[in-house]
Amino acid sequence: MPKRNAFYAQSGGVTAVINASACGVIETARANKAQIGKVLVGRNGILGALNEELIDTSKERKADIAGLRSTPGGAFGSCRFKLKSLQEDAREYQRLIEVFKAHNIGYFFYNGGGDSQDTANKVSQLGKQMGYPLQAIGVPKTVDNDLPFTDTCPGFGSVAKYVATSTKEAALDVESMCETSTKVFVLEVMGRHAGWIAAAGALAQEQPGDAPHIILLPEVAFNKKAFLTKVKETVSSKGFCVVVVSEGARYANGKFLGESGAAKDAFGHAQLGGVAPTIANMIKDALGYKYHWAVADYLQRSARHLASATDVEQAYALGKAAVEFAVAGKTAVMPTIVRTSDQPYRWKIGEAKLSKVANVERFMPKSFISKDGFGITAKARRYLAPLISGEDYPTFKNGVPQYVRLQNQLVAKKLPSEW
Amino acid sequence: MPKRNAFYAQSGGVTAVINASACGVIETARANKAQIGKVLVGRNGILGALNEELIDTSKERKADIAGLRSTPGGAFGSCRFKLKSLQEDAREYQRLIEVFKAHNIGYFFYNGGGDSQDTANKVSQLGKQMGYPLQAIGVPKTVDNDLPFTDTCPGFGSVAKYVATSTKEAALDVESMCETSTKVFVLEVMGRHAGWIAAAGALAQEQPGDAPHIILLPEVAFNKKAFLTKVKETVSSKGFCVVVVSEGARYANGKFLGESGAAKDAFGHAQLGGVAPTIANMIKDALGYKYHWAVADYLQRSARHLASATDVEQAYALGKAAVEFAVAGKTAVMPTIVRTSDQPYRWKIGEAKLSKVANVERFMPKSFISKDGFGITAKARRYLAPLISGEDYPTFKNGVPQYVRLQNQLVAKKLPSEW
Repeated sequence: MPKRNAFYAQSGGVTAVINASACGVIETARANKAQIGKVLVGRNGILGALNEELIDTSKERKADIAGLRSTPGGAFGSCRFKLKSLQEDAREYQRLIEVFKAHNIGYFFYNGGGDSQDTANKVSQLGKQMGYPLQAIGVPKTVDNDLPFTDTCPGFGSVAKYVATSTKEAALDVESMCETSTKVFVLEVMGRHAGWIAAAGALAQEQPGDAPHIILLPEVAFNKKAFLTKVKETVSSKGFCVVVVSEGARYANGKFLGESGAAKDAFGHAQLGGVAPTIANMIKDALGYKYHWAVADYLQRSARHLASATDVEQAYALGKAAVEFAVAGKTAVMPTIVRTSDQPYRWKIGEAKLSKVANVERFMPKSFISKDGFGITAKARRYLAPLISGEDYPTFKNGVPQYVRLQNQLVAKKLPSEW
Repeated sequence: MPKRNAFYAQSGGVTAVINASACGVIETARANKAQIGKVLVGRNGILGALNEELIDTSKERKADIAGLRSTPGGAFGSCRFKLKSLQEDAREYQRLIEVFKAHNIGYFFYNGGGDSQDTANKVSQLGKQMGYPLQAIGVPKTVDNDLPFTDTCPGFGSVAKYVATSTKEAALDVESMCETSTKVFVLEVMGRHAGWIAAAGALAQEQPGDAPHIILLPEVAFNKKAFLTKVKETVSSKGFCVVVVSEGARYANGKFLGESGAAKDAFGHAQLGGVAPTIANMIKDALGYKYHWAVADYLQRSARHLASATDVEQAYALGKAAVEFAVAGKTAVMPTIVRTSDQPYRWKIGEAKLSKVANVERFMPKSFISKDGFGITAKARRYLAPLISGEDYPTFKNGVPQYVRLQNQLVAKKLPSEW
């Protein structure tokens, strides 16, 4: 069999370390030239495969590929595009196989969350049916940390470090001024379904009672009365109160706080991202405290300047392992992180079947949430703490981080654009 | 004359480096034991003097005082409390003098913005009138960068670095996804009157046309039509558009964007901090683009993890110079930063009279604002660039920065609490 090329694509929301996985894939493929030809990357993710817009990474300088390890965002473009189900419409899958065939692609590395692992699995199945065997390997990625079977997901540790650090810093600010100024500070963070990111705010605490005083998780139904009581008690005893709220915080009936009341009237959209002002206003109305709020939004998941060294290392290692799996002849699997020790944190690469990973969301377990629902347990802290460990600063130039920008040259098309 | 003590207080909004100035004051006073006794610090700023709540810094360990250099927030507490005018009510000033007299305080170091420099000046005048000569020295501080006579104000360079870095990082994120997802990203930053902080967003640009594509300054009246045209052009040519907006952005009639329309209906308060959602919604309504927005709020001014090394150095140097001025017998002055060269950036300590500094705000000059009002000029870039130069990372422990917490022991009161 002639040496076949590899296809790699980034999928869904990007992170501070998804390019570190790309770096792991490309560098490891380059180190296995006997088995793998070029690494072709989808421009804007899987769309690049459908549109036959394939970036030829062999044109990139070694230093630029190495620079991906410390560059946030998606260097080749990513997309939110879910392929239809095979039953509903197989054309998209067939087109993928045609493009892969036309470019002699035998390895499919798909870097994304649950949906993407599902897609990779289906492509692998369909290739077999169509007589074009393809090794499909998933590379996990999601700031939401909600994939099963892996200790954690690349991207999460860095967001967690950002949220813990920012909460700690802002809390010092609020505490300084609380005698005459702001008494309540609300930080809104990502996490529409799972509260892992908000929970990481607790890593700002050095001792019990430290900020953040309240964490609002999607896993715990919001109880306005209990919340306001806790805010009041905290301001009375500490002089100030810091709240970290997940964008997915919701009432018992499932309604998001961010779509209700003030935020909804204001923005007129179901789009989330207004829970911080909603919560802050609720406190002001009930208790009269002066407030400030922040919405970190994309800042949190792109903050490569504050990446977790552990996260960067794992992101790279998973990209590397994906290629090693492919070289070893595996298919329809995803490398995972297996924790072998909490303290010191030790981990190794494991393996999960794509068919089992797909579309399973992992939420914060009950044993990780404190009894009153406003904080995390010691068990959760043991789990979370190592994930934010270590710093891995990018190089700075002129006062700002120096990130690489690739050439992203496309290979010539071989198929008609219409399909 | 017996050796006299010093009083130091932090005033107004805190910054990532105001404690570095405190460190400069305390360490330099300790190095001048022949002339200066203890450094007593007002608990919660000037309120500590009025309430005779004086923190005895001689109780603090040398390592903790050194640690102030890399700890954000106000380690002794700060306050928003403006003394009445001398004409209106001299009692507050008299009380200050009484407290200073009771504690043998001969040096008054006041670390703050324009208002604080005015207060320091008045205290100095009144002391003279009351036959209690006092050396009052201002130490400049404000993230707003709006004090006159000094090249820059401690606190600003670090916020500027945060805003430039965050804009650069978030722009990479948005660019990755713009084909199928968010096309417009709006980052709201501080600066109610002056646009220095928003302007610093431009330092994210490596070349013309890079993000941020639009900067909205308080100095330029907001023109909705021109703004929307520019957004549309940018999305058409680049595929996405990044906007940095100052919380003080306003219409020609002076009305803040953040108090108008959606944000006002939503939060029901004149309190600013809603301009990002307002702008984002305006774009969505007119052009239909999917948007995201972030409000950095306190995160930007407390982000010691990303402080500008230049800013930290200047903050310390100004605290040190203030004490040296006092030892040299000066009063009613403030040390300043004097720029002697743009590139390489060179600066030295200068001196300004408090009577001239007080209550003068420095805005972005016209020559710093691009012709279309949506960006900055090469001249502005030459001014701003060196201020964010250099990194000065705090020590990290368990994945988060390790910041000092002082003992803040109060000295025994000598006066009645009622006055």
